[in-house]
Amino acid sequence: MLVVMQEGATEAQIDSVIERLVNMGFTVHRSTGAVHTVLGGVGPIDRFDPADFEVLDGVKECHRIMSPYKLASRSFRPDGTTVKVGNVEIGGNRVIAMAGPCSVESEDQIERSAEFVAKAGATVMRAGAFKPRSSPWSFQGMGEDGLKLMRRAADRHGLLVISEVMNQTQIPLMCEYVDILQVGARNMQNFDLLKEVGKVKKAVLLKRGISATIEELLLSAEYILSGGNMDVILCERGIRTFETYTRNTMDISAIPVVKKLSHLPMMADPSHGTGRRDKVLPMARAAVAAGADGVLIEVHHDPDHALSDGAQSLYPQQFEELMQQLRIIATAVGRTV
Amino acid sequence: MLVVMQEGATEAQIDSVIERLVNMGFTVHRSTGAVHTVLGGVGPIDRFDPADFEVLDGVKECHRIMSPYKLASRSFRPDGTTVKVGNVEIGGNRVIAMAGPCSVESEDQIERSAEFVAKAGATVMRAGAFKPRSSPWSFQGMGEDGLKLMRRAADRHGLLVISEVMNQTQIPLMCEYVDILQVGARNMQNFDLLKEVGKVKKAVLLKRGISATIEELLLSAEYILSGGNMDVILCERGIRTFETYTRNTMDISAIPVVKKLSHLPMMADPSHGTGRRDKVLPMARAAVAAGADGVLIEVHHDPDHALSDGAQSLYPQQFEELMQQLRIIATAVGRTV
Amino acid sequence: MLVVMQEGATEAQIDSVIERLVNMGFTVHRSTGAVHTVLGGVGPIDRFDPADFEVLDGVKECHRIMSPYKLASRSFRPDGTTVKVGNVEIGGNRVIAMAGPCSVESEDQIERSAEFVAKAGATVMRAGAFKPRSSPWSFQGMGEDGLKLMRRAADRHGLLVISEVMNQTQIPLMCEYVDILQVGARNMQNFDLLKEVGKVKKAVLLKRGISATIEELLLSAEYILSGGNMDVILCERGIRTFETYTRNTMDISAIPVVKKLSHLPMMADPSHGTGRRDKVLPMARAAVAAGADGVLIEVHHDPDHALSDGAQSLYPQQFEELMQQLRIIATAVGRTV
Amino acid sequence: MLVVMQEGATEAQIDSVIERLVNMGFTVHRSTGAVHTVLGGVGPIDRFDPADFEVLDGVKECHRIMSPYKLASRSFRPDGTTVKVGNVEIGGNRVIAMAGPCSVESEDQIERSAEFVAKAGATVMRAGAFKPRSSPWSFQGMGEDGLKLMRRAADRHGLLVISEVMNQTQIPLMCEYVDILQVGARNMQNFDLLKEVGKVKKAVLLKRGISATIEELLLSAEYILSGGNMDVILCERGIRTFETYTRNTMDISAIPVVKKLSHLPMMADPSHGTGRRDKVLPMARAAVAAGADGVLIEVHHDPDHALSDGAQSLYPQQFEELMQQLRIIATAVGRTV
Repeated sequence: MLVVMQEGATEAQIDSVIERLVNMGFTVHRSTGAVHTVLGGVGPIDRFDPADFEVLDGVKECHRIMSPYKLASRSFRPDGTTVKVGNVEIGGNRVIAMAGPCSVESEDQIERSAEFVAKAGATVMRAGAFKPRSSPWSFQGMGEDGLKLMRRAADRHGLLVISEVMNQTQIPLMCEYVDILQVGARNMQNFDLLKEVGKVKKAVLLKRGISATIEELLLSAEYILSGGNMDVILCERGIRTFETYTRNTMDISAIPVVKKLSHLPMMADPSHGTGRRDKVLPMARAAVAAGADGVLIEVHHDPDHALSDGAQSLYPQQFEELMQQLRIIATAVGRTV
Repeated sequence: MLVVMQEGATEAQIDSVIERLVNMGFTVHRSTGAVHTVLGGVGPIDRFDPADFEVLDGVKECHRIMSPYKLASRSFRPDGTTVKVGNVEIGGNRVIAMAGPCSVESEDQIERSAEFVAKAGATVMRAGAFKPRSSPWSFQGMGEDGLKLMRRAADRHGLLVISEVMNQTQIPLMCEYVDILQVGARNMQNFDLLKEVGKVKKAVLLKRGISATIEELLLSAEYILSGGNMDVILCERGIRTFETYTRNTMDISAIPVVKKLSHLPMMADPSHGTGRRDKVLPMARAAVAAGADGVLIEVHHDPDHALSDGAQSLYPQQFEELMQQLRIIATAVGRTV
Repeated sequence: MLVVMQEGATEAQIDSVIERLVNMGFTVHRSTGAVHTVLGGVGPIDRFDPADFEVLDGVKECHRIMSPYKLASRSFRPDGTTVKVGNVEIGGNRVIAMAGPCSVESEDQIERSAEFVAKAGATVMRAGAFKPRSSPWSFQGMGEDGLKLMRRAADRHGLLVISEVMNQTQIPLMCEYVDILQVGARNMQNFDLLKEVGKVKKAVLLKRGISATIEELLLSAEYILSGGNMDVILCERGIRTFETYTRNTMDISAIPVVKKLSHLPMMADPSHGTGRRDKVLPMARAAVAAGADGVLIEVHHDPDHALSDGAQSLYPQQFEELMQQLRIIATAVGRTV
Repeated sequence: MLVVMQEGATEAQIDSVIERLVNMGFTVHRSTGAVHTVLGGVGPIDRFDPADFEVLDGVKECHRIMSPYKLASRSFRPDGTTVKVGNVEIGGNRVIAMAGPCSVESEDQIERSAEFVAKAGATVMRAGAFKPRSSPWSFQGMGEDGLKLMRRAADRHGLLVISEVMNQTQIPLMCEYVDILQVGARNMQNFDLLKEVGKVKKAVLLKRGISATIEELLLSAEYILSGGNMDVILCERGIRTFETYTRNTMDISAIPVVKKLSHLPMMADPSHGTGRRDKVLPMARAAVAAGADGVLIEVHHDPDHALSDGAQSLYPQQFEELMQQLRIIATAVGRTV
């Protein structure tokens, strides 16, 4: 931690800052420069908020220097983490595909979905039973019935199951049916939910919020890790910008950035990242080319009649094509699918 | 609802769109223009997602026309809503000040806070008992003990109490102590929480998420209203942009926009909106000049030693000054404080 | 300037950074902390780009500390600058209104405009003769003929003239007709234009670019000031964000921020800032309440038939109303109109 | 063009809108629906600004339907455009690499650069002679001397030359030395410059502005095309968002979007797109995987001593590695390098 004093800061101002830092538990090192006095501190950095010091008299600026997260940091596990769920490893050499419809709608729909996503090479089936919808008037999901149908279909086709948990009271129920708990973008800073999924023995896929910085994503992961659950998978799914042609702007650069800053696996969701079916294939290729550990894809046997997110759901044959393309790109970057 | 077909769309494509709309329950009116065929539909607009139709063959673009929210719309209550809590009316002629520290820290701190905010003219005391913090290593709040201290201090000084509820399991507890439930920016799309606060008999202050559009804010209000709770107060508290000098960019224009689109009261939180103590006064004045129904202000008897958000907390004398300035501005726009 | 070395940085790495700084002309002060070694430097800060050092081996982070601008800085003229043009002072106690149509369209139109804006209390007439339009197919302005009409109408009504200069070759022509040269938002980083307007003896109003940070705005002002032209007026006119209800998001907080960081006058343009006629009044009030030195307003005698920007142009009677409201708000903040 | 009237709009309001449209030259088709009356118009769409109509009495909303650009539209040349410069084709099967230092600094530097970029497989050398710098105190480029050195070095190694033109007065000079004129991001809406480069017989590479929508990029291309110069190449180079880890956020999805909307070649600049050397390789791979027609790469023989943008410049060996990786990715998407 560094505090830079203004030119002409008085000794009283400097002493006051030093005293405050010492009271917080910092060991302070003072360096008196020609223009600025700089105070360096070693101590409880987690409690240091630069903004608190920047408004003090005589202070020019402050910097934290150390990352505010620890367990999510690459330095915590320099070799990276591979999350093992059943016989699937996320974060290893193999690029993983998790695919399925936006929502579970019926037994027939989910059974067909399981069949063709398994056949095309996906290892995990995704679908929502509880749906976060902007409008209260939109379809809200089938609930537990949906989970049952999903589990059954997945089992028949040797797939794992991932589905979104929307609040902490749903965790026990969800854990009966799914292999991976998904925390959605809108809940990335629902800290009570993060704390609770940090206590269970299930892998958690944490999506980046649409306006979350990469640092905030890693801090949210830190909430889960600090509860003792080390099986955390991150996922880029598009951020909100001024561009409206795509629903969100998929921040592909977040993939190599997260891989450098953290040891956690990093996936990509080009379906939500773009919101447009015709952009899913190029963006899935881009994500894998940039180093993603896997992709999350929305696909429906009949997207024109999907109850939600039909516009971004692939047709089955498009998903097959996507898997073929990813095999080629994965090979190009020294991985398999 | 309007679907505009592409130039040269085939009859089969047009029929297919019409069929799909009719199946959804729409009455469709076809208008064959020189270049484009346009389909207008009247029906269950809440279930109509333009994106679903824009990817259909032969479709150029789609528009919803009707707002996706109803109960939050100005047309639902053209004269506007005044939320009455105790003897305080929010949304009436009087501009309301809700003020207090970021977090309850101790009995002494909250007692002092209540004393000076009441004296300066605030009618509601704000403070957090459960704190949403980006980092799991930051101070997380005093919990129920904090609520008790806050209630007692508020009662002693004739103040109402507002505090943030972070998840639906906390609602019964919160309701014992507070007069207004606050749903924070990070929870603006925690739909399960919105549904539950929609069922209680307590006013709810709903903050705009840092990346939420005004339409999304109103849709989230719709969740609460549709549960039967009509005592909803909205609040602008800054959005996330590229500018980093202020913590967020306070969208003052959202105030007149919301006042036009909706009947709900609209407040402003310049403390979070700017993140900097020295910008709170000018932005509070600006908010009232633009038509805000009230302000939410962080103030601390000793901001330099606050456990959270000290940088944006006013000193007591600054809060007094703010109240004096707001009185003048309120008068200038034909209101009182 | 500060360079913080990584934990465990080698002596060779530290020496290499020191050598590079010394070669650039810095005097370097080394401080060896328990965890991090910190290098402080005094020297040619204008040429120091933190990004260049942050990629060096062993470096953790870098900070500039000093503002990259000097002449635009408040410390250069602590008492603030008043730009005098004719008998009008911008940046003094009086809040200035510059008003007029988006474009000069005809003699009749500009004559009517001059008449009613002067009558309502504006002191400067604005109108475009050369128009920056997103599409090459849109109306591009009347050119020199427009300038002539504007000058004549302004003179008849005792108004000053401001108009936009789009490239440096137009400067001599513009200087014959206008009192204040406007550099538009799209040209805020047209550095060749900035250099040239820095050499003339005319006041310059520099608008913030729609994606420019406040620091970049001040750096662009620095280009003009460093050419010797100290009569620079800044103007907030809305930034681009994800919100689409308003054309831009007017960053009212930029007003007090610029007033603190710089000595230059700061105006506000709520017409472009919102893009909607019905939001111009509340946002003009907000701007003045937040400390703006003046407002730039688009107004047309017949907005429904304006050749450009009709949607954001006030009707004459609305402009009168705006001036009356600003008088009240200005008084509330201790100023006049 | 469509105008949707409000529920309950009067006949007088409807007639007034129709009259205005007819006066503008539109043929209007009226469709009276159960709730809304819709007016469809065929006519001079380039002059139709939806915002102008949305503020009229009785109007609910307006839509343009047709793209505001024509010559840049994919429908203008469905098979796409290949820009031929010397023996290089941009927009064909081969993925093109344009590489070189940020600025020309000296004869030795540019000669070394030409040598190694040619050897590694680049076909065009990039370098700046006139530099747009945020601060007037930064290195501003070598000017014409730089152009001469660049031309000579490029010729010796069989490379084409691209360099940035900053204003229209520089065009004749630039044309003596370069093969492709670059219009930088800050000048994307310098319309006078666009008009002038539209008149010359040189290919133009137009970079997307950091806050420009894709539609605005295509409209700026339209300016050049409408001047008669059809050799326009577009380039994504990062947009400004709230994320600060990377200097900009590279919008990879803009690549497939532009390829669909327009016939023009689309390149990618991961050096400016990320601002960080260590992210250039993954993002270049991602861009090619997403369909980019080429990449623009900053590379320096000694980035640690570069006069500008050293932080994002590759070391020569990194550039070789990049070219090898692009060969593999290009093959994976059916192209060559």
